[in-house]
Amino acid sequence: MDGLVPRPVRVDPAPGVCELDDLVVPVVVDPAAGLPAEGYRIRIAPSGVHAVAADEAGKQHAEQTLRQLAGPETFRAANIHSGRWVLPCGEIVDHPRFAWRGCLLDVARHFQPKAAVLRFIDLLAAHKLNVLHLHLTDDQGWRIEVPEYPRLTEVGGWREGSWVGRPPDGTEEHDGRPHGGYYTTGDLREIVAYARERAVTVVPEVDIPGHSQAAIAAYPELGNTGAALPVRTAWGISEHVLNAEESTVAFYRRVFEHLVDIFDGPVIAVGGDEVPTVEWREHAAARAAELGLSSPDDLHGWWIAQIAGHVAGLGRRPLAWDEAVDAGPLPPDTIVASWRGEHGGIAAAQAGHDVVMCPEQHVYLDHRQSDRPDEPIPVGYLVPLRKVYQYEPIPDGMPETVRERVLGAQAQVWTEHLDNPRRVDYAAFPRLAAFAEVVWSPPEREYDEFERRLVRHHLPRLDALGVEYRPLEGPRPWQTRPGVPGRPR
Amino acid sequence: MDGLVPRPVRVDPAPGVCELDDLVVPVVVDPAAGLPAEGYRIRIAPSGVHAVAADEAGKQHAEQTLRQLAGPETFRAANIHSGRWVLPCGEIVDHPRFAWRGCLLDVARHFQPKAAVLRFIDLLAAHKLNVLHLHLTDDQGWRIEVPEYPRLTEVGGWREGSWVGRPPDGTEEHDGRPHGGYYTTGDLREIVAYARERAVTVVPEVDIPGHSQAAIAAYPELGNTGAALPVRTAWGISEHVLNAEESTVAFYRRVFEHLVDIFDGPVIAVGGDEVPTVEWREHAAARAAELGLSSPDDLHGWWIAQIAGHVAGLGRRPLAWDEAVDAGPLPPDTIVASWRGEHGGIAAAQAGHDVVMCPEQHVYLDHRQSDRPDEPIPVGYLVPLRKVYQYEPIPDGMPETVRERVLGAQAQVWTEHLDNPRRVDYAAFPRLAAFAEVVWSPPEREYDEFERRLVRHHLPRLDALGVEYRPLEGPRPWQTRPGVPGRPR
Repeated sequence: MDGLVPRPVRVDPAPGVCELDDLVVPVVVDPAAGLPAEGYRIRIAPSGVHAVAADEAGKQHAEQTLRQLAGPETFRAANIHSGRWVLPCGEIVDHPRFAWRGCLLDVARHFQPKAAVLRFIDLLAAHKLNVLHLHLTDDQGWRIEVPEYPRLTEVGGWREGSWVGRPPDGTEEHDGRPHGGYYTTGDLREIVAYARERAVTVVPEVDIPGHSQAAIAAYPELGNTGAALPVRTAWGISEHVLNAEESTVAFYRRVFEHLVDIFDGPVIAVGGDEVPTVEWREHAAARAAELGLSSPDDLHGWWIAQIAGHVAGLGRRPLAWDEAVDAGPLPPDTIVASWRGEHGGIAAAQAGHDVVMCPEQHVYLDHRQSDRPDEPIPVGYLVPLRKVYQYEPIPDGMPETVRERVLGAQAQVWTEHLDNPRRVDYAAFPRLAAFAEVVWSPPEREYDEFERRLVRHHLPRLDALGVEYRPLEGPRPWQTRPGVPGRPR
Repeated sequence: MDGLVPRPVRVDPAPGVCELDDLVVPVVVDPAAGLPAEGYRIRIAPSGVHAVAADEAGKQHAEQTLRQLAGPETFRAANIHSGRWVLPCGEIVDHPRFAWRGCLLDVARHFQPKAAVLRFIDLLAAHKLNVLHLHLTDDQGWRIEVPEYPRLTEVGGWREGSWVGRPPDGTEEHDGRPHGGYYTTGDLREIVAYARERAVTVVPEVDIPGHSQAAIAAYPELGNTGAALPVRTAWGISEHVLNAEESTVAFYRRVFEHLVDIFDGPVIAVGGDEVPTVEWREHAAARAAELGLSSPDDLHGWWIAQIAGHVAGLGRRPLAWDEAVDAGPLPPDTIVASWRGEHGGIAAAQAGHDVVMCPEQHVYLDHRQSDRPDEPIPVGYLVPLRKVYQYEPIPDGMPETVRERVLGAQAQVWTEHLDNPRRVDYAAFPRLAAFAEVVWSPPEREYDEFERRLVRHHLPRLDALGVEYRPLEGPRPWQTRPGVPGRPR
């Protein structure tokens, strides 16, 4: 019972084992059992297993725990186990520390086929993570079919090539290999339903008013210059942002209505990060004045307010990146995702917003896992497994009075340098297992103990799942990318 | 009922529909029902569905047919259907024309992660195909863990880079991106079990004595020169073949014993194709003479006899490529796969061997699907959808008396130019749907009728499955590979 990941709140081992012919253990959902939300209790005696859960999510978590107790082979897609299943005796009482235990998957920079997204949901559920934040649009691609605006996917859904690694800014050349793909409305409904069955909520993101070059490539009238733009082949931030015309806002209102129709979760993400204002200064000064703004720069906050307000009007909670706090007033119900560090989250909480912590210094899983010379495409901060494990979602500097505003945290898997699901596996695991324990388990934790448990008990589960994680000792030869430039910070 | 793929033997539509709250229809396995092997019968009336099958495989096929009748949404991983399911009334009586309805997947040239293999099995089963021939080793990679010989995967499991497309022979440059991966013993047992649950038999292939450069790279003592070789980065055929030492045969006997331990199907493939003899002429003349062979060239047949004999001795049927018929005597139970055309299959049948037809002119799905300039990496013969559909597994030139030797046919997905599962989807579909009808349905068929049925009924199923097939009108922009050289024949 000492091999579970994430570590449960309470484990009381007892002598003996329980042998079962098959692993179907009924978990009774009993809201009156006195368990916290998503909580469960498992009692294993030689005579049998008794499992109770607070709710459907708790039932899912109990089943994942039972699977871990029965051994790594339970993580395979077909049974290769012979003989009876053996569970250790004892009692487990468990519930999550945070309600928001998320992971962002960027399907815009590199499209992840539907099968890969469904598999990623399985992996989240196996780690008792419960939010999949899907980053669906960016400068480099638009991934959601919107029936009214077919060019978003016909044109915005692919690019002519991609930067290989992170060459100097301004580099024009790229690999010349077209890249694209998008999800149909049916695909997205399927992803939502599949996730729901596994107690995972999908938070869709359409990023406005920056990170929009793919949309402008599809519909130049959304941009500031009217010029025909390609879908971006370079990484980094495009200066081409949405204009502030009423028609453009109306266009995006329709896009978000489509999102709200598909995604039935309570939260819809509107982006709002990294918005260069150079085009607005040149082209939108009059429009800003007409809107009563003191500077074209204020169109950043104005845009977020338009869309966040619309999302709120549709009965959902907007989620915005932390720039939104600086940019202007937000609907009070807006959740702020603190990615540039912890200060945005602290400020947002003090301003009365709920907060999801995702500081890039700690939980960006595209960032480099080591300083080894063979670490593939090293970008961003040094974020080894230990650092993720030691991350604490409640910032030291956050006043006690607003700490309850922290809903939880999410890890982020940006995919500029992860051009297929195997690369996603490498970046995400085993760091996401460490992160799962950060958001689920009680805050007292000790890395060395975790690493021993990981190596002995959890890596065999990932092996059985077919997860091509980064070995603790460094990348396998075929996981390296010799000669491809990174950009470490 | 007129939208099924592959088309059933007999369909008798009747008026009305049957409405069901859920789609769980029990299929009764009744060997006494008078149905041929793998056969099934479904009767749908407004009052309910009655389904009976000859055996477990027939039950699987009946369930696939019911799924097709209920609509494309049944092919999604989670239910997005609301309301009752509606099935058309009538009777379907069905069984396959051939017992061997296969597809080869080359996981050696480009490793296909386990999840992709499992998904491919789902796709085979959805098309009532029942054999997955896994090409596990080649010059460019060795994909199966053999615990006694760890260097097979440590060294042979990856290469430093790959040719991009098909440049001139002798080209030294490659993309510099390491490529690798392998299946553990547990992974392979899981693949076998997963396939079995779907009435698919896995035929593993370890290719000897050619196509062995990855093994020789791992263990130079298996080769003729003792020189250290890299795992091959170019496509085409390596001249580096296995030596004929007793120790090398013993090594491979152990490899095949490992295969036999993992793969519980009746057939084990030993390769035997494309064996250059230049090294043997230089290095193995004495050994050939010692073995009583009249020429070093005869080591080709000798090698196949050693391993095919061992496989037969282990109680399995060897399968060999058609060169084996020319190369020398084969154990009588050996199945011959006729790939260079139909002549090898005809000769093998006349020599008393069972035959699987897979002529490259007709069913090589890596070959180009059109003559369009934007067809990605065009290699091999022109094999459009129509040509696959019109393929007839019983060759015209085959004497009537030996036609019963044709067990069936298999399509082949070689992956030199399919570097990820999305590219496999493009190459395999929808041609594999046409092939499925070739091997399942009665021989009378008309392409135009099939194409209409495909477009109206079956492509929506592939869409729901998330299969990124080649649209009939040509590749999507992001499915093209501009500038990458092919080599059309």
